[in-house]
Amino acid sequence: MVQMMKDIIKQETDIDQTSGTEIDSVALEDLCRSLSNNDPQAAKIALASLHAADASDVIEQLSNDQLRQLASFAPDVFTGEILAELSDPVLEKIVEILDAKTVADAIGALESDDAIQVVEELEAEFRDEVLKSVNPKERQALETSLAFEPDSVGRLMQREFVAVPAFFNVEQAINNIRQSDDTTMPDTFYEVYVVDPSYHVVGLVALPVLLRAKSNTPLSELMSPVQIAVTQQTDKEDAAYMFEKYDLPSAPVTDQSGRLVGMITIDDMVEVMHDEHTEDLLSLAGVNEAGLGDTVKDVVLSRAPWLIVNLATAVLTSMVISIFDASMEKIIALAVLMPIVASMGGNAATQGLTVAVRALALREITKANAGRIIVREMVAGLVHGLIFAIIMGLVTFVWFKSLPLALILASAMVINHLVAGFAGILVPLGLKRLGADPAVASSVFVTTVTDIVGFFVFLGLAALVLVS
Amino acid sequence: MVQMMKDIIKQETDIDQTSGTEIDSVALEDLCRSLSNNDPQAAKIALASLHAADASDVIEQLSNDQLRQLASFAPDVFTGEILAELSDPVLEKIVEILDAKTVADAIGALESDDAIQVVEELEAEFRDEVLKSVNPKERQALETSLAFEPDSVGRLMQREFVAVPAFFNVEQAINNIRQSDDTTMPDTFYEVYVVDPSYHVVGLVALPVLLRAKSNTPLSELMSPVQIAVTQQTDKEDAAYMFEKYDLPSAPVTDQSGRLVGMITIDDMVEVMHDEHTEDLLSLAGVNEAGLGDTVKDVVLSRAPWLIVNLATAVLTSMVISIFDASMEKIIALAVLMPIVASMGGNAATQGLTVAVRALALREITKANAGRIIVREMVAGLVHGLIFAIIMGLVTFVWFKSLPLALILASAMVINHLVAGFAGILVPLGLKRLGADPAVASSVFVTTVTDIVGFFVFLGLAALVLVS
Repeated sequence: MVQMMKDIIKQETDIDQTSGTEIDSVALEDLCRSLSNNDPQAAKIALASLHAADASDVIEQLSNDQLRQLASFAPDVFTGEILAELSDPVLEKIVEILDAKTVADAIGALESDDAIQVVEELEAEFRDEVLKSVNPKERQALETSLAFEPDSVGRLMQREFVAVPAFFNVEQAINNIRQSDDTTMPDTFYEVYVVDPSYHVVGLVALPVLLRAKSNTPLSELMSPVQIAVTQQTDKEDAAYMFEKYDLPSAPVTDQSGRLVGMITIDDMVEVMHDEHTEDLLSLAGVNEAGLGDTVKDVVLSRAPWLIVNLATAVLTSMVISIFDASMEKIIALAVLMPIVASMGGNAATQGLTVAVRALALREITKANAGRIIVREMVAGLVHGLIFAIIMGLVTFVWFKSLPLALILASAMVINHLVAGFAGILVPLGLKRLGADPAVASSVFVTTVTDIVGFFVFLGLAALVLVS
Repeated sequence: MVQMMKDIIKQETDIDQTSGTEIDSVALEDLCRSLSNNDPQAAKIALASLHAADASDVIEQLSNDQLRQLASFAPDVFTGEILAELSDPVLEKIVEILDAKTVADAIGALESDDAIQVVEELEAEFRDEVLKSVNPKERQALETSLAFEPDSVGRLMQREFVAVPAFFNVEQAINNIRQSDDTTMPDTFYEVYVVDPSYHVVGLVALPVLLRAKSNTPLSELMSPVQIAVTQQTDKEDAAYMFEKYDLPSAPVTDQSGRLVGMITIDDMVEVMHDEHTEDLLSLAGVNEAGLGDTVKDVVLSRAPWLIVNLATAVLTSMVISIFDASMEKIIALAVLMPIVASMGGNAATQGLTVAVRALALREITKANAGRIIVREMVAGLVHGLIFAIIMGLVTFVWFKSLPLALILASAMVINHLVAGFAGILVPLGLKRLGADPAVASSVFVTTVTDIVGFFVFLGLAALVLVS
C-alpha cells in the first residue's frame, strides 16, 4: 500500500515534467534546503530568477510550518506580484506573519486591481494598518474599491486606462499616449477609449487599428462601438460572461452616471471564470468555499456542513424504510434489492442536475426552451427507466425466481427514473427562481428525493402486492 | 404542477432580463414569427442587426425543426461568424442542410482559427466538398490545421501574426505594420513578435510599449522574453493553463524546429478553458461529451453508458448484501440502517474526489505535496468518521435501544469514512497515473468502493457480533 502511494506520488512528478507546465522543482528543492539550513539569503536566491506566477507556485508547495518560517525570516521575498498570485488560503497564512509595513511596501508597486486582491484578503484590523502605510493617493483608490460589493466590477477594476477625446486624430492620440506620465498609464492596454467632454465613452479604438490608420484620421471615424455596458455595480460574473461571449480583451467601466472611471481586462475576467468554475464544481459535490484549503481542519470544516445535511436525509430515508420492516422480514429479497432502485435514480438525477447547472451558468436555459428542456429530461428519464426496468426485471427474475418481485422492481425503476428526470431539472430551476445558486444544495435535495421515492415505491408496491 | 412549471419558466425569463446578459427576445420572437410565416426575408431582418455572438444565441434557442427550416429557406443568414459561434450540436444539424458552396463562402471570410472550428465539425465527405470550394490558399491552410491532433495548438492557432526583425527600430516596425497588406494581418493582435533571420522568435513587444517608445529605439532593447514555449504539437489545455498562469494576451507558436508559424490568442484559450471545465463537470457526473445535446435521443445516449456501469455495480452491491440475508432476517434494523453507512461514505468520497480532480486540473498536486494531501484526506476522513459515528451511534441507540447495534453502526461509519478519504484521493491519482482523465469514471469507482465497504463492514460486523 505504501509502495503504491509512493508510486503514485512519483508518477505525479513524471506527468508534471512532461507537461511543460510543471512546478520548478529545482527552485523548490533549493527553497526547502534554505529553510532547513535556516538561510534567508539562499531562500531569496532560490526565488529571485522566477516569474512571480512560478515563484508563487513554488511557495504554495510548502507546508504551513515552512510558510511561516519563510515569512518570518525572509519577508522581503514576498513582493507585491507574488502576493497577488498566491491563493487565498496561502496568502492568509503569510500575512499573519508579515508586518503591515512590509505588506504596504509590497503592494505599493502594484496596479490598483492587483493591490486590491491582496488587501481584500486581510483581516479588518490589519488591513487598516496596511492602508495607513501606503501613500495617500493609493490608499484612497483602495478604499474606494473596498466600498464596492466583493462580487462587483468596482472591486476588481483598475483605475488606470487610456482615454482620448473624440475630436483627436490618430497622431494626436498617439502623441497623447507617448507623452502621458508612466504613473497614470496602465501597465498594459489593448484599446483606447474615446470620450466626449463629459467623459462618457462614445467608442473605442483597438491599438492595431490606431497603429495602421493614417495620422490625420479623426478617432470618430475609426472607433467601434463599445460592445458591453459595464458599471462599477455590474456583477463580475456577468462581466466575465460578456467578455467570453464577445471575445473582448478589455472593457471600459463607468459609474452610474455613465462617466468613465476604470477598465477591466481579460486576465482579471479569466480569474473570475476560473473561480466560478471551481465554485460550481465544488458546490455540486457539497464542498464549501474553502475547499482547496491545506489543513485537516480546513478540510473537515469545509465538508462537514453538507455531510451533516446528508446524515439527516439518510436518517429520514431509513425512517421511510422502517415503515416496511415487516414486509422486509417476510421477504428479505426486498432488503437486498432496494439499494439498486435508489442508486440508479440518484445517479440519473445527478446527471440531469449537472447538465442543468452547467446550462444555467451558460445562460442556455431561457423562456423559449425551458419547457422543451423539462419535457426532454422527463422523457429521457422515462426511456432510461424503461431500459433499466427491463434489464433489472430479467436479472431479478433469474436471481429470485419470482415474477411478481421482478415486475415490482421494474415498476419502481420506471417511476424512480421519471422522478429523477423531474427532480434533476426542476430542483436547479427552482433554486435559481428562489435566488439561490443552483449548484449549491441541488445534489442533496435531488438525491434525497430519489432515495426516498426509490425505497418508498419499491417497498410500498411490494407490501401491497406481495405481503398483504 | 403545470402551473409551477410555468412559473419557473416565466421566472427564468425574468432572471434573464435583469442580468444584462439575456438572449435578445425581440429578435427571437421575430425569427420564430418569420419561420411560422415561412418568410425568409423577415428571418434575415430579425438577425441582421445582431452581433454574431447574439445571433448565434438566438438561433440556438430554436427547436430542431425550426433550425432545419431556417437552414433550408434562408441559408445565407449563416455567415461565417455565426457558424463559428454556434455550439457543436447545433452546427452539426445546420450543416446537414446547407450545401458545400454556402459553407465554403461563409468560412471564406473568417480567419484561419475560426474557419477551422467550423470545418473540423463537418463529416469527412462533406468536409472534402467544402474544402474544394474554398480558395486554394485557404484550403491549404485548413488542410494543414486538420493534419494536427484535434487537441493540439496546431489545430486552433491562426496563421496570421505580426513578426519583425530584431534589427528594426520602433519607427521601422510601425511602418512595417502600417504598410502590410490587410490579408496577411490578423484582425487583431496585442504583441509584435521579434524574429531572427531564421524566423526564430527572440522576444516580443507589446503594442503599448511600441507606441510609447522613441522612434529610433531598436526592438532588441524593447523586447521582453517570450514567457512560454508553444509548438503546434502542444496540448491546447496546457497552452490555456499557461495563458491563465502568466496572464498572456497572445503567444507565438513555432514548429518543431523553432520557426514561427502562427499565433494563439486569449479568446481561443478562454474557449479551451471553458470546454475543459464543462468536460470535467459532466465527466464527474457520468455524462458523456454530447451532454448538452438537444434531443431526447442525445440525452439518453450521452448518459446511458455510466448508468449501465452503475447498474452493474449496484447489482454487485446487492450481491454483497445478500451474503448477509440471514442476519437481516433476524435483525431487520440492519436493513433499515445499512443505507446510512453507504450514503455517508459515498458523499464524503465524492467531496474528496471532486477537490482532487480540481486540484489535478489546476496542477496543484505535485511530488512535494502529494504525500501530504493523501495523509490529509485520510485524517479528515477519520475525523469525519468519528464525528458522524458518535452522532449516529446515539441516534441508533435511542431509536433501536441496542448498545451493540449502536456500536457496530458507529464502527462501520468510522471505517467507511476512512475508506472514503482513501478512495477519494487515490482513485483520481491512480486514474491519472494510468493516463486516464481523472474526472471520468472516478465517481463510479469511488462510490462503488464506499457502497460495498459500507454494506459489507456494517452487515459483516453485525453478523459476527449480534447474530452468531
